[in-house]
Amino acid sequence: MILRLRPGTPDAKVQALRDRCEREGLRTVLSPESARPVFAVVDKAPAALAAELRADPSVEELIQPQGDWRLVHRSFRERPTTVKIGGVRVGGGEVVVIAGPCSVEGRELVLEVAQLVRRAGAQLLRGGAFKPRTSPYSFQGFGVEGLRQLKDAGAAVGLPVVSEIMDASNVPAFVDHAIDCLQIGARNMQNFTLLKAVATAGRPVLLKRGLAATVEEWLYSAEYLAHYGCADVVLCERGIRTFETATRNTLDLTILPLLREWTHLPILVDPAHAAGIARIIPPLSRAAIAAGADGVAVEVHPRPEEARSDGPQALLPAELTALVADARIMAAVTGRSFHPPPAAACS
Amino acid sequence: MILRLRPGTPDAKVQALRDRCEREGLRTVLSPESARPVFAVVDKAPAALAAELRADPSVEELIQPQGDWRLVHRSFRERPTTVKIGGVRVGGGEVVVIAGPCSVEGRELVLEVAQLVRRAGAQLLRGGAFKPRTSPYSFQGFGVEGLRQLKDAGAAVGLPVVSEIMDASNVPAFVDHAIDCLQIGARNMQNFTLLKAVATAGRPVLLKRGLAATVEEWLYSAEYLAHYGCADVVLCERGIRTFETATRNTLDLTILPLLREWTHLPILVDPAHAAGIARIIPPLSRAAIAAGADGVAVEVHPRPEEARSDGPQALLPAELTALVADARIMAAVTGRSFHPPPAAACS
Amino acid sequence: MILRLRPGTPDAKVQALRDRCEREGLRTVLSPESARPVFAVVDKAPAALAAELRADPSVEELIQPQGDWRLVHRSFRERPTTVKIGGVRVGGGEVVVIAGPCSVEGRELVLEVAQLVRRAGAQLLRGGAFKPRTSPYSFQGFGVEGLRQLKDAGAAVGLPVVSEIMDASNVPAFVDHAIDCLQIGARNMQNFTLLKAVATAGRPVLLKRGLAATVEEWLYSAEYLAHYGCADVVLCERGIRTFETATRNTLDLTILPLLREWTHLPILVDPAHAAGIARIIPPLSRAAIAAGADGVAVEVHPRPEEARSDGPQALLPAELTALVADARIMAAVTGRSFHPPPAAACS
Amino acid sequence: MILRLRPGTPDAKVQALRDRCEREGLRTVLSPESARPVFAVVDKAPAALAAELRADPSVEELIQPQGDWRLVHRSFRERPTTVKIGGVRVGGGEVVVIAGPCSVEGRELVLEVAQLVRRAGAQLLRGGAFKPRTSPYSFQGFGVEGLRQLKDAGAAVGLPVVSEIMDASNVPAFVDHAIDCLQIGARNMQNFTLLKAVATAGRPVLLKRGLAATVEEWLYSAEYLAHYGCADVVLCERGIRTFETATRNTLDLTILPLLREWTHLPILVDPAHAAGIARIIPPLSRAAIAAGADGVAVEVHPRPEEARSDGPQALLPAELTALVADARIMAAVTGRSFHPPPAAACS
Repeated sequence: MILRLRPGTPDAKVQALRDRCEREGLRTVLSPESARPVFAVVDKAPAALAAELRADPSVEELIQPQGDWRLVHRSFRERPTTVKIGGVRVGGGEVVVIAGPCSVEGRELVLEVAQLVRRAGAQLLRGGAFKPRTSPYSFQGFGVEGLRQLKDAGAAVGLPVVSEIMDASNVPAFVDHAIDCLQIGARNMQNFTLLKAVATAGRPVLLKRGLAATVEEWLYSAEYLAHYGCADVVLCERGIRTFETATRNTLDLTILPLLREWTHLPILVDPAHAAGIARIIPPLSRAAIAAGADGVAVEVHPRPEEARSDGPQALLPAELTALVADARIMAAVTGRSFHPPPAAACS
Repeated sequence: MILRLRPGTPDAKVQALRDRCEREGLRTVLSPESARPVFAVVDKAPAALAAELRADPSVEELIQPQGDWRLVHRSFRERPTTVKIGGVRVGGGEVVVIAGPCSVEGRELVLEVAQLVRRAGAQLLRGGAFKPRTSPYSFQGFGVEGLRQLKDAGAAVGLPVVSEIMDASNVPAFVDHAIDCLQIGARNMQNFTLLKAVATAGRPVLLKRGLAATVEEWLYSAEYLAHYGCADVVLCERGIRTFETATRNTLDLTILPLLREWTHLPILVDPAHAAGIARIIPPLSRAAIAAGADGVAVEVHPRPEEARSDGPQALLPAELTALVADARIMAAVTGRSFHPPPAAACS
Repeated sequence: MILRLRPGTPDAKVQALRDRCEREGLRTVLSPESARPVFAVVDKAPAALAAELRADPSVEELIQPQGDWRLVHRSFRERPTTVKIGGVRVGGGEVVVIAGPCSVEGRELVLEVAQLVRRAGAQLLRGGAFKPRTSPYSFQGFGVEGLRQLKDAGAAVGLPVVSEIMDASNVPAFVDHAIDCLQIGARNMQNFTLLKAVATAGRPVLLKRGLAATVEEWLYSAEYLAHYGCADVVLCERGIRTFETATRNTLDLTILPLLREWTHLPILVDPAHAAGIARIIPPLSRAAIAAGADGVAVEVHPRPEEARSDGPQALLPAELTALVADARIMAAVTGRSFHPPPAAACS
Repeated sequence: MILRLRPGTPDAKVQALRDRCEREGLRTVLSPESARPVFAVVDKAPAALAAELRADPSVEELIQPQGDWRLVHRSFRERPTTVKIGGVRVGGGEVVVIAGPCSVEGRELVLEVAQLVRRAGAQLLRGGAFKPRTSPYSFQGFGVEGLRQLKDAGAAVGLPVVSEIMDASNVPAFVDHAIDCLQIGARNMQNFTLLKAVATAGRPVLLKRGLAATVEEWLYSAEYLAHYGCADVVLCERGIRTFETATRNTLDLTILPLLREWTHLPILVDPAHAAGIARIIPPLSRAAIAAGADGVAVEVHPRPEEARSDGPQALLPAELTALVADARIMAAVTGRSFHPPPAAACS
């Protein structure tokens, strides 16, 4: 449950209420909000204690969320959360575009892509160094060397970088290479070992929705991250598995407006994996932002036919430029901002 | 297969090519296009005949569609089809809003709704007289009397009307009451008896996608309509059944850009049945038009809590007005038009 | 709600309780049970009336079903229902096999199949005269002539016949040709017009589950049949649409033991449409009966490669014989009976 | 591709053919078969090389599997594989029952359960020490201490033990505690890091199917295990996620007969997680074995209401005894064996 106290409740009183819960063996977590004290009781409270707390004059509101998550629950924060990745703000009224190659495939290529991503006006650079592949015989990524190449390219053009982590033991490598945001892929959304490890990395996390994960399960995975130490979680819808085979997956935009009510976390959309075909990504990106997404994540390649993975869903440079322009318009007509990428030292 | 002939091919030559096919027992259908002669061979042609036709100097292009539909196939027309419902144009660069009560529930109420639909700027009035209900004990609609009330309300405010037909034997009633567009509901998408009967009504048809219908099956149902006499078909996506239970259904916007390539028919989106909750319908409507839909169909009620069916997903009048404004903006930013409803005699 | 009265409650008292409900405008239906009086109140009763009835000393049990169906609810009958099709008993501890060609394709062929079906030991003959086909260009069945051929073949070998009806206007033709059981196909499970018409035919009905129908929706469709006059409904699971594409559909056997608790109706399984491949039908048939099904419905053809529809899922005669032997064994090890087909005048 | 050589092909010739592939940079793996030499070329071979090999007189058959897995492909082995877990044989015509508590919850309890599992006649003891839980606030298992308790209980009654591993770093703990079979849970089916680590543990692996994994993806995950060193993989179907909510998941028995054709690995079924309700597990277990499963895995608890996880789906001791009896009968009527658990030193 979440307790929202009256503005101005003294710290000692807040502490007393938390102590009351802790004495029952229930863990509490204080919200970083400033407008009023808010705290969550993460363990299940007995009805008698809930009644007692609700009756306390300092308690303005006691919320028993329908979904049982707490730290990522909308009520735990006054306003939607803005997550900072490098210098780029995600959520809270800002629309962003994340772009890059599906996989990092060499120093020169990733730099070429980074430059075109920046020129197109996207704010964040993505690229896979560790690739989760269905078949053991498919290209598995360049590993740590790929992280280095990605970070160098991002630094060269002045863009923060996002990359997928698949293994808890790699957390130090991601930190050492100053990867700005760690991505948890769809297949690992319920890899709880990985969630716990990544939560301690001190970096923002991009959490993709599993192919067949309910929204509830997705938010619980975000709650794992929050509970184990990472408050800066960005959700990313990437299509769910349905009976329809005309597209690879079905982008679930229906859930976006509800997610806004259920969590304070920013929400991105990756239209590429659902579409599976580059030419339908632009209209889907427009739709995602129109439905309320805080931005989109796409793949781009100067010569998609040479890509070692997912070439058919990579945009051409000119298509990315058009997509960024679209994102700016969609941000405007839905009352949000689209800022250019941060000033770069050398681009 | 579809044969696109060279512009200027003389009629006699066109007829000769069709006769060649018909002699093999294959039925042919001429496209209403004017730019060049185009005809479809609806039965499966032997490879030898296809080769022979392809070699004919008058044949510019012989298309063997991947999906096996013909008359609704994109290649059967030069340009996307515009369907006229009453005086309102649907498709071909025009965005429309269809609105009305879920069910027609009395002469006064439907007139009140019709007036607010017109004031809000929507171009078409919808309302259910025959209601397909899961339970035999739920309200089943006013039947023919409902058709009369709907048509009278539409006439009073000058809006063409759309209503669902569930039974082949009711075609005369729909025609007699001058219902401008007959809707085939999701549960009847593969009610082939109904499709055949409705195809002969001489009215445009709004064909909803079945809850678990693939796009291919949907287009085959449209092909039934076309084959049995109705060229003016409007498709309407209304959400598919998936594992996610947070929303009633999942709106499949992913398919929209592909549908554009597969068929020349206009495509609407009904976000209400997927959402199941009125307050998330506006962002989903924006997303639908952003993804390329030719318009949206929604439900509106001045007092949703009094509605005899689907109250929770009915918009309030002010919400409809805002939604129409949004539709106009989304049409503009995606390069399309949004025209006001036709001039009314008395509104 | 369903009221189960004490054994021996006098008729006048039963009538008084029903009158009490009817005075409130609630329709009641008496169960054909003999062990004790049972009746259903099909309309929603106010809480006060429910409390009053529950307090009546003649009322042993008042059941508010979780699912809102009444006449097909398990509690409406003392024992599971046995439906008689011709002289064959379905349900109530008897296991049956229904077999026949996918479509009736000529007098000689259907007779040949009927003879092999009887020789194999199956108790009911099936065959499609009206075929629901996804494409308008596929073979649509022989229509009324097909019904005649099927019935003649059934009569010749002494087997009752089952055939699918797609159109309310064909009810007289099915009755005139003495079709013993009318089948509602998966695509028509929520064709409420058809359900109402078929319910008045005075024949048992085989109701297939829709491809994406929940069990709840399926039982409501059975309730339509019961409410409009047909008490003899046999349910038939035939596979649901899922993300898996290795098989055509996924047979939902998981639901079988629950269905037993939710309804008194017999339940068959059609493994062929889910499997899509003949050679996996035998193990799935065993599994269906092991899970509790009252029998299976399969397709058989002496030369599957010549079948005009669904050849790949038709069993060979010898495979049908083995399947019937399996069914007999599965009936035995699950404590049920498997009777040979009824004595035939001429076979 | 897979090459099946003629019986009696000399070793030198086999080596020469493998060398031919390796020179092209293609890795090869020799099958452990003895009837004839068989080897797989795991990397994609150019068409010219395939043609050359096919023409070699020693090559009896060159198989290009439709699904792209190799080491787990049916053609890689002469006969279906039998996996030995402790002294218990799984697959190859033997039917087994795995039973135990959902989670290990204390030394005395797990011993009590182990004794009743053995008395019931099940051959393997299962129990969770590391629990993958949707919510971070749910009971996460006893960890390594749970492994110790499980193994001690198994040793006391003479049953090999199976337990789920969630973290690559725990492989040594599972080996040190002599866990006889490592289970990969549904949520980790595509946790490729874990698959690679577990493959090197030198123990048989029970690989559960993901909730929304296609059979193809599942077999690729098994191929990961085989490619990285573990030949002894047992597949376990546990229900897939569908639109139906009456049951927790839908057990996919339809796929079982196809799996037999696609892989040589043994296949178990866990009906409990799909059902979610103990009382429908017995008929589903019968159905699973009737459909061809090599056995079932279930949960049992002497007092399910006290279980810390999944109590509602735990069988009572008497129910397990009946289920084992059923399994024995189903094995018999499908032509397979059901052996009692191995002789125990002290039970």
